[in-house]
Amino acid sequence: MPQALRILNTLMEEHLAAEKSDPVRETLTPQAIRAKLDLDLRATGIPFEDLKDELRGIMAVTPVTANKSFYNQLYGGRDPSAFTGEVMSTLLNTSMYTYKIGGVHVLIELALVKRMGEIMGFEDAEGTFLPGGSMSNLAGMVVALNNAIPGYKTNGPQGKIPRVYTSIEGHYSVPKAAGLLGVGQANCVKIAVDERGQMLPQALEAAIVQDLKDGLTPAMINATTGTTVLGAFDQIAPISAIARKHNVWLHIDAAYGGSFVFHPELKAHFKDAGLADSITWDAHKVMGVPLTCSVILVKKKGLLTQAMSQSASYLFQRGTDEYNPGTRNLQCGRRNSALKLWCAWRVHGDQGYTKRTQAMRNNALTAQECIQDSKQLKLIRVPESINICFEAPGVDTDDLLDAMLSDGDAMIGHAQVDGRTVVRLVLLNPEVSPSDIRVLFATLSAKAEALAKG
Amino acid sequence: MPQALRILNTLMEEHLAAEKSDPVRETLTPQAIRAKLDLDLRATGIPFEDLKDELRGIMAVTPVTANKSFYNQLYGGRDPSAFTGEVMSTLLNTSMYTYKIGGVHVLIELALVKRMGEIMGFEDAEGTFLPGGSMSNLAGMVVALNNAIPGYKTNGPQGKIPRVYTSIEGHYSVPKAAGLLGVGQANCVKIAVDERGQMLPQALEAAIVQDLKDGLTPAMINATTGTTVLGAFDQIAPISAIARKHNVWLHIDAAYGGSFVFHPELKAHFKDAGLADSITWDAHKVMGVPLTCSVILVKKKGLLTQAMSQSASYLFQRGTDEYNPGTRNLQCGRRNSALKLWCAWRVHGDQGYTKRTQAMRNNALTAQECIQDSKQLKLIRVPESINICFEAPGVDTDDLLDAMLSDGDAMIGHAQVDGRTVVRLVLLNPEVSPSDIRVLFATLSAKAEALAKG
Repeated sequence: MPQALRILNTLMEEHLAAEKSDPVRETLTPQAIRAKLDLDLRATGIPFEDLKDELRGIMAVTPVTANKSFYNQLYGGRDPSAFTGEVMSTLLNTSMYTYKIGGVHVLIELALVKRMGEIMGFEDAEGTFLPGGSMSNLAGMVVALNNAIPGYKTNGPQGKIPRVYTSIEGHYSVPKAAGLLGVGQANCVKIAVDERGQMLPQALEAAIVQDLKDGLTPAMINATTGTTVLGAFDQIAPISAIARKHNVWLHIDAAYGGSFVFHPELKAHFKDAGLADSITWDAHKVMGVPLTCSVILVKKKGLLTQAMSQSASYLFQRGTDEYNPGTRNLQCGRRNSALKLWCAWRVHGDQGYTKRTQAMRNNALTAQECIQDSKQLKLIRVPESINICFEAPGVDTDDLLDAMLSDGDAMIGHAQVDGRTVVRLVLLNPEVSPSDIRVLFATLSAKAEALAKG
Repeated sequence: MPQALRILNTLMEEHLAAEKSDPVRETLTPQAIRAKLDLDLRATGIPFEDLKDELRGIMAVTPVTANKSFYNQLYGGRDPSAFTGEVMSTLLNTSMYTYKIGGVHVLIELALVKRMGEIMGFEDAEGTFLPGGSMSNLAGMVVALNNAIPGYKTNGPQGKIPRVYTSIEGHYSVPKAAGLLGVGQANCVKIAVDERGQMLPQALEAAIVQDLKDGLTPAMINATTGTTVLGAFDQIAPISAIARKHNVWLHIDAAYGGSFVFHPELKAHFKDAGLADSITWDAHKVMGVPLTCSVILVKKKGLLTQAMSQSASYLFQRGTDEYNPGTRNLQCGRRNSALKLWCAWRVHGDQGYTKRTQAMRNNALTAQECIQDSKQLKLIRVPESINICFEAPGVDTDDLLDAMLSDGDAMIGHAQVDGRTVVRLVLLNPEVSPSDIRVLFATLSAKAEALAKG
């Protein structure tokens, strides 16, 4: 291990420097990377010291995600306190299934579940950490199916056809989970949205009423707070009224937007979150914790364990289910995802996340101004949170983004809005300042102008 | 980040020393830990420097899993090269859904899938990394369901009742996945085993024939190579003949035992693995990579992607599915689990894993001898691999193991065999030597003798 720590210190310092000196890297083709690097596995090993050079080669062609030129995904930046916690988790290597092996880390996970539940309006939530929002949404759907069809875990759908509802702007993990869980993607009903990207409650209710008439079993409504493309928020109050009226499980996919509960204005979108039955909330997005860190919260205690548990006498040996999180999780052996978030939260406090989300939101408002002031750019929607969708009329969006990438300016993603490919800029790195945003948009405008001239 | 690296260096050195000086820690109650440590999340943060002391407190009560006194789980030890890769993954924070963001790490994952497939007898496997063997087994079952019931992903079971088969010694993740995926745990048929813990092929075929008569749909046979309690291996050849005859998907759960493919004798259990349709293989168990590192391998290319994929225009933007592993994975945002295994494999080579598994197996044979030579201990089964199940007649197994733990000798687990609670010692740390084993058994014998006298 002393050699490992020495190699790591060298490589980490080099990488932190390279992130600044070489911030935006053009995407090399698989062929180009394979021509440069030997990636094969062999019968004979190499000296550990040589691994340092091999890792250097890999680092040099790795897309940089932790600097101020990366606006491509719903994560970004790097939180030193979370990083510290994550490396310690790797060193301690505790598996999060039982109290015997997890010990204090189980208590840390419980403390986070309790606090995150309380913030969302669940008095005493049951919950656990899962590897990403897709898995948390899937877990929420499993609980919903067991709620709608008693005995689902033991006997499956028993001839019933469960239906789940999400908006056309909802994350693809919801229909995907329906496809995995035996619901069928065709039984995931996509509900229309308004101009702002919010699910239309009347359309939702109409779909449920029709399904009930057709003898189908409405099992789950998924409301999205923080949609992937527009960063929009479904309205919980009217949706929860429909859920209650028709006795349908209400899940909130707050994987992306959940952390805006700390923002002085955006938190209004969560004032009725406690009316839901379950919530997905990721900390590896807006809270900046290393991948992955997602929590599933269930309001009524016991339902998550009931839907997930499977006895295993060699494993769950003593103690109560509360302290054996394996009984309420999809996974068995499980990496510790709680410590990194706990470390970050201890250091920042709720107040730190308020400041963090305020910085992001201010950048979004600055970006909106820049677009409105630019002759080359056109805003597609007023940003609901920190996603800015815009285009350069007369310029192909892909060409504009390719030019930004190949010139080393920034890596930015695109999305489909109103049937067109537009720029989707997401502002998740709190180190980005309003003046960085102004520089970015000056570059975008100049490039758009040049491309328009051809 | 400089502060984080400084804090980490201090804490890592302290922990490595503490693992030696304080190797076995008694399990503190949740109440005792909460009395000692403040784990609450607050509105106001703390200085980053203070996190160091908080982490010290947490480390001091964390169960130690990486030293030679830990025999409790199907993982143990610490591989410095894998550790190096894992910390670099955390620093680079690449999400493994698209080539645009994953880049070279996607190619590393593909190289591992190809090599691991070839070793198991799949010429050109399709595969991906998942967070643990339970998730890989679940993914295998998803593909099997889509194979048995065309359109499962789109329309669910369509009135059919799928059935899956695994032995009574198989891992609990198989019936658990059946419960999650809409199959129903009651439709997971548990097949009897022989004295050695191998699934009885005749009993398997009888169950399938009966189910076909009853109009049910046999969807997957799960063969286990490396059972959790006995470390036993199902026989692939006769099971695959049954699978072929009745046209049922054959999945091998080699989560635990897969790495014994490197052992000169134990590899015989894998000579027919290529006859299977899919295989789960974990690297965080016998190969000693940090949690979690599991791969699902599917023999026929395209089936995994077909069962998992869900279109998402904002995400899977360009390039082919081959280089966008998100299209064949349960997860969306995904931690890089491939780099750590790649680092370890480059350093050790296949030959290193041969030596590693030989050391483990030699320890198992030494343990067998020690038990056979002891008047106090009785072997329950001749070890099939590296699990040693034994008891001290006249002594309660829990009492014996509690004494070992509270006296600071070792943390060892127990299991149910033949309806009794017995000791299940697993020998996954290759740094343990035959002389360590002899010392361990001298202590076990002495403690058993003392307890027998009362």
